[in-house]
Amino acid sequence: MFVTLKPSVFDPQGQTILDALSSLGYESVRDVRQGKFFELDVVADSAQEAMTISTEIADKLLANTVIEGYRVEVDPKRGEGD
Amino acid sequence: MFVTLKPSVFDPQGQTILDALSSLGYESVRDVRQGKFFELDVVADSAQEAMTISTEIADKLLANTVIEGYRVEVDPKRGEGD
Repeated sequence: MFVTLKPSVFDPQGQTILDALSSLGYESVRDVRQGKFFELDVVADSAQEAMTISTEIADKLLANTVIEGYRVEVDPKRGEGD
Repeated sequence: MFVTLKPSVFDPQGQTILDALSSLGYESVRDVRQGKFFELDVVADSAQEAMTISTEIADKLLANTVIEGYRVEVDPKRGEGD
């Protein structure tokens, strides 16, 4: 799952990276936004169940939904055969 | 671009989240790894050029390649028409 600051929220880490890149001569970079991602190994009977569990976890625990948005992706193939 | 700790490196943030999920009753989550991602707006003549610039930035500045790995993806459609 991917957690990122909402577009309206100022991202000081991204701005710092942008300033550093500019001072290093990377003028072609116009904007930087930093975010977090989380890889969860979820044991579930279906991709739908894994998505439900992951979305609940993102919403309750991992994202501050006041200032952050999140996106959940499920890769059903990972961990098959365990 | 996605920056994540190498599999052999202990991830204390991920472990803390895993412990928290376990205490909240999410027993179906077996492992958590946390990583960072960066969205860069790069002005380039081609996707290949954007990939070259982004990879150089990831390698030099954004990833600590001693303990972290990184993956770069380019989305050429973003920002078209600017």
